[in-house]
Amino acid sequence: MISKTYLVTGAAGFIGAALAKQFIEQGSKVVTIDNLSTGFRESIPEGVIFIEGNCQDESIINQLNSYQFDAIFHIAGQSSGEISFEDPVYDLQTNAQSTLLLLKYALKTNCKKFIYASTMSVYGDQPDIPITEEASTLPKSFYAVGKLASEHYLDIYSKYSIDIVALRLFNVYGPGQNMENLKQGMVSIFLAQALTNKKIIVKGNPQRFRDLVYIEDIINSFTIFLGVNKPGYRYYNVSTGIRTTISDLLDKIIAYLPYEVSVEYSDSTPGDQFGIYGDATKIEKELGWKYQTDLDKGLKKMINSILTYNE
Amino acid sequence: MISKTYLVTGAAGFIGAALAKQFIEQGSKVVTIDNLSTGFRESIPEGVIFIEGNCQDESIINQLNSYQFDAIFHIAGQSSGEISFEDPVYDLQTNAQSTLLLLKYALKTNCKKFIYASTMSVYGDQPDIPITEEASTLPKSFYAVGKLASEHYLDIYSKYSIDIVALRLFNVYGPGQNMENLKQGMVSIFLAQALTNKKIIVKGNPQRFRDLVYIEDIINSFTIFLGVNKPGYRYYNVSTGIRTTISDLLDKIIAYLPYEVSVEYSDSTPGDQFGIYGDATKIEKELGWKYQTDLDKGLKKMINSILTYNE
Repeated sequence: MISKTYLVTGAAGFIGAALAKQFIEQGSKVVTIDNLSTGFRESIPEGVIFIEGNCQDESIINQLNSYQFDAIFHIAGQSSGEISFEDPVYDLQTNAQSTLLLLKYALKTNCKKFIYASTMSVYGDQPDIPITEEASTLPKSFYAVGKLASEHYLDIYSKYSIDIVALRLFNVYGPGQNMENLKQGMVSIFLAQALTNKKIIVKGNPQRFRDLVYIEDIINSFTIFLGVNKPGYRYYNVSTGIRTTISDLLDKIIAYLPYEVSVEYSDSTPGDQFGIYGDATKIEKELGWKYQTDLDKGLKKMINSILTYNE
Repeated sequence: MISKTYLVTGAAGFIGAALAKQFIEQGSKVVTIDNLSTGFRESIPEGVIFIEGNCQDESIINQLNSYQFDAIFHIAGQSSGEISFEDPVYDLQTNAQSTLLLLKYALKTNCKKFIYASTMSVYGDQPDIPITEEASTLPKSFYAVGKLASEHYLDIYSKYSIDIVALRLFNVYGPGQNMENLKQGMVSIFLAQALTNKKIIVKGNPQRFRDLVYIEDIINSFTIFLGVNKPGYRYYNVSTGIRTTISDLLDKIIAYLPYEVSVEYSDSTPGDQFGIYGDATKIEKELGWKYQTDLDKGLKKMINSILTYNE
């Protein structure tokens, strides 16, 4: 097997770390850029070449100049709609300017594959049906605006014969998710609260719903594109197609935790969507991806991993 | 009449200068920010308070801090799809980051009206019918991506009880248009070539078409919103609804010029649209705006103004 070289931005974060780990275990060479703003240095898998800094800084991108990547996975970036209201300009830079600089680097170094972590947030408020990729895009947070602008950049750059894919990730969860950030990741927030206080505080209506995708399935959606030759720009939902209410999720969490927890309700957060779940037909048809881990199995695995870690 | 205070960004440019001039003539106070990258210091109307710099620089916005504006007109920004391919990062900053900072300023200073110069380019390639505001947005240049991101920011900020309007300007022309910039403004490019070389070079197919709007009508579309109370975010085509081919335009220009000119054809430019014209029903119905100057009248006025200026 010929060893490959990949750039995985954000490898100190939840998804980036999991993807980088898999590549390292397969014997590939991995470089990452991460600013450690929400990720942790110790989360970066061993063996990954680490450049500390922002992907939106030209001086940081210039440090890549000796590498010729087989593919670029751009995952770094502030990833919360809620937090994006704190500093919209930073959000624009981390989520849109970074993409421009990495696309420019891909073009300059003749890298032929570019995989981008986009988000279901680009859809904004939608009717209560499985949302297909044909739905209109109505971003409701600064985070979502930056991600959507990045998608448009990908479309423009695909004209320069780079294969480009944007993955519109729905709600990702699983082992490795940051349990200390109480503003990001619905499952991890609930579990962290249960763990520390034996009490879960729900911000907003329990009838809101989500489409929860297990981390391993997410990683597969990133790697599957490596084996496919699809010129041009494509974008896909990475979703299960299953509508899970907050209430359903809480029931499961409570059932799988080995101790009692209580639940309390508070106000909603700005830019939060009432609910969205994604039709996953397109990625299954075109790339053969389908989720493998259902919510029960995924939650059990995540809870086990947390309990083991805390023992 | 109570005197008003307005911020008109980009008052060294074609549209900004015309708008600022009208306000000054009405006895209003006008402040502008302009980086003079394409505009000219001498184009800024007399009496306008001029801050030289970029709207995307926080230090420049901070210089506004003593002013309380009755309305902000954000017109500054690199305004060519073609040129946006030269430096996409600059384009993002000038066309999207600038809007964020000005919206933040509006919110902080309790300014209640914000009028934004957007563009028909947000639509991208569309079928050959009058395009309504309901059409999908598929930006094909870095310029258009930045403008669309700005529109999304306006939508988000309108939740903070600022009345916000985005005007999707179609092809603007008229006296005052920069005749020295041969990359921007179809009518001015053709006229400038006719004037200097007695020869017009057409980049691309003469069957491409445009929707040409005279500068005075554009200025009216900006000011009409001052007298209207429409809370929330609104966006409108500012168009005539008339489909003019390049070939038709050239025929008229040749007819109205007092000397002979020849025409030559060359390649098209990146990100250029084959053609688009806009349905203007929405702005007429909701704000009462309709174009007043047809192409024949507008071209004659523009040609007269240039010939007088060059005598």
